[in-house]
Amino acid sequence: MKKLINKPEDVLREQLEGLEKAHDDLLRVHFEPNYVYRKDAPSKNKVAVISGGGSGHEPMHGGFVGMGMLDAACPGEIFTSPTPDQMFEAAKKVHGGSGILNIVKNYTGDVMNFEMVADMARAEGMKVQNIIIDDDVAVKDSLYTAGRRGVGTTVLAEKIVGAAAEAGYELDKLADLCRKVNLNGRSMGMALTPCITPGSGKPSFDLAGNEIEIGIGIHGEPGVRRTNIKPADEIIEEMMLAIMENIEYTRILREWSDDQNDWIDVELTDPPFQPGDRVIVFVNSMGGTPISELYGVYRKVAEICDKEGLKIARNLIGPYITSIEMQGFSITLLKADDEMIKLWDAPVKTPALKWGI
Amino acid sequence: MKKLINKPEDVLREQLEGLEKAHDDLLRVHFEPNYVYRKDAPSKNKVAVISGGGSGHEPMHGGFVGMGMLDAACPGEIFTSPTPDQMFEAAKKVHGGSGILNIVKNYTGDVMNFEMVADMARAEGMKVQNIIIDDDVAVKDSLYTAGRRGVGTTVLAEKIVGAAAEAGYELDKLADLCRKVNLNGRSMGMALTPCITPGSGKPSFDLAGNEIEIGIGIHGEPGVRRTNIKPADEIIEEMMLAIMENIEYTRILREWSDDQNDWIDVELTDPPFQPGDRVIVFVNSMGGTPISELYGVYRKVAEICDKEGLKIARNLIGPYITSIEMQGFSITLLKADDEMIKLWDAPVKTPALKWGI
Repeated sequence: MKKLINKPEDVLREQLEGLEKAHDDLLRVHFEPNYVYRKDAPSKNKVAVISGGGSGHEPMHGGFVGMGMLDAACPGEIFTSPTPDQMFEAAKKVHGGSGILNIVKNYTGDVMNFEMVADMARAEGMKVQNIIIDDDVAVKDSLYTAGRRGVGTTVLAEKIVGAAAEAGYELDKLADLCRKVNLNGRSMGMALTPCITPGSGKPSFDLAGNEIEIGIGIHGEPGVRRTNIKPADEIIEEMMLAIMENIEYTRILREWSDDQNDWIDVELTDPPFQPGDRVIVFVNSMGGTPISELYGVYRKVAEICDKEGLKIARNLIGPYITSIEMQGFSITLLKADDEMIKLWDAPVKTPALKWGI
Repeated sequence: MKKLINKPEDVLREQLEGLEKAHDDLLRVHFEPNYVYRKDAPSKNKVAVISGGGSGHEPMHGGFVGMGMLDAACPGEIFTSPTPDQMFEAAKKVHGGSGILNIVKNYTGDVMNFEMVADMARAEGMKVQNIIIDDDVAVKDSLYTAGRRGVGTTVLAEKIVGAAAEAGYELDKLADLCRKVNLNGRSMGMALTPCITPGSGKPSFDLAGNEIEIGIGIHGEPGVRRTNIKPADEIIEEMMLAIMENIEYTRILREWSDDQNDWIDVELTDPPFQPGDRVIVFVNSMGGTPISELYGVYRKVAEICDKEGLKIARNLIGPYITSIEMQGFSITLLKADDEMIKLWDAPVKTPALKWGI
């Protein structure tokens, strides 16, 4: 295993220490339990937006803590859900009286633990909503996940919802917005190489020398199929077809109902992509793929959008939701309305996304 | 060779097309000859700042074209100097009457071709200064280079000098500033893995399974030594020692003299790092190393700076001067004064660096 690390058991702590040292104008890190939070916590006169999940996907989520995005991030061990007590400490730290929105990627452990912490926070009088992101069109039901996995749309949701919280949206309106972003976002990824977790020292899966995997998850979960390496344009076409395919996808997600004072199952269906739609396009590196190749990918994605009548309103290109050093990329298309685009453009100041300020 | 590309001969064109499509609010790309230039060219009432060099180091330089940084970038073929005619076309495109500053990394081909284009531009009545960056303390005289190679300080110089040009610095004052940045910047890199150029399809050099190379160049040029992989802190300590070692380094660089109307040899010596100095710290990924590991590196770099009495005024962490998908990193320390820090903080809007606007 060739990595820029010291002892495997110290990797996460040392990386979080580096994040804090580098960005002490924006954030603080609490250790044991681990969480990253805005330096100006608690969040006054605004809903606190929190996310979290296993580590190994940096800059997500710790790199999105700051003005206009997340109030706190709870990093679990690598590829492991954060614990409820860790999330609860984070919630108490940043909650300023206007409630909490948890943005939860659809992995069974994350969903369960975020539900538990919502219950704990509610028991202390905080208002909490959990919105699940399940945008990965590659596979339904997977290792760690019932239903679709949550991937690239999470990044876009954290930016848009973070801006709305900053603008003073109340909790229920913020939850509606986050749900809308999820339903309008679709993603798919692929891998050229596996990644190696520091703890195991071994590749998360095996790929032959000339083999790639289409539809891979961000923990190396199996994708749609393996194939020999082929021209990038063919790979992109296959992924874009899957993303733009207007199969009506209906899922049942758990949300909290104040009326019923309980968790309820909500049935939600994706709206289709249609010619004339505006989209935010996100081309993401899995960690080891350089930015130059992402621009080659973007060229083809833009060409396909153009052909299909989708108008690219904004784009984001770079490594934002990664699988350690995995080589590969993902594409996310978010069908965006005026509200989303305006919130996308709003100022943000975090380690990984920064503009307008 | 596993890469997200189509035909090797189309890689550069397609990536530049993607860059232009993604950032058409900031820049344009001219093809054959290839150069990237600000959308609002020519540069009115300001010196035009131009850089260039072989491709494969993205986002450098095309990703630094925009407000507050470069007016144009000339990308050569991968790891190959751009040609004088290519640079000359770029110069004519962006020159708005206030002269041109070329920021040149110290590689023999780049230096020679930028000299040639300066002569061509001068023959057409433009004022031109070339400032060479030679900040890599790893080795003196290397493959492609007489003297020290130009690496990470180039990124910092392009930001600082770009801001100064935007603020209205005249050409000679801008050249003085760029020279000052170069003399105060020192860098060193290392590789965990080689990279593969699309044209050759082969690794640029070989490293055994558990071997790393300290002091590597950004084209895979030989470094100081090879060693087995070891804890990151030990690698960082070795690199920081080399960077902070106050050997008085004197080099002779070629600059243009208006007085003598000729190129002259200028003898220049690095000032030492001393306790109390402020530094801008730049921890850079060679392309394939994920941001999480860079934060682990930054933690140790900051600890060493602290121990040595160097005060970190600003930092930059991410993949900015890369070697395609090479895994590894480099550290740059720039001894910074008030002027440099103020210019560092000035607004910038480019594909790769964006803040304050």
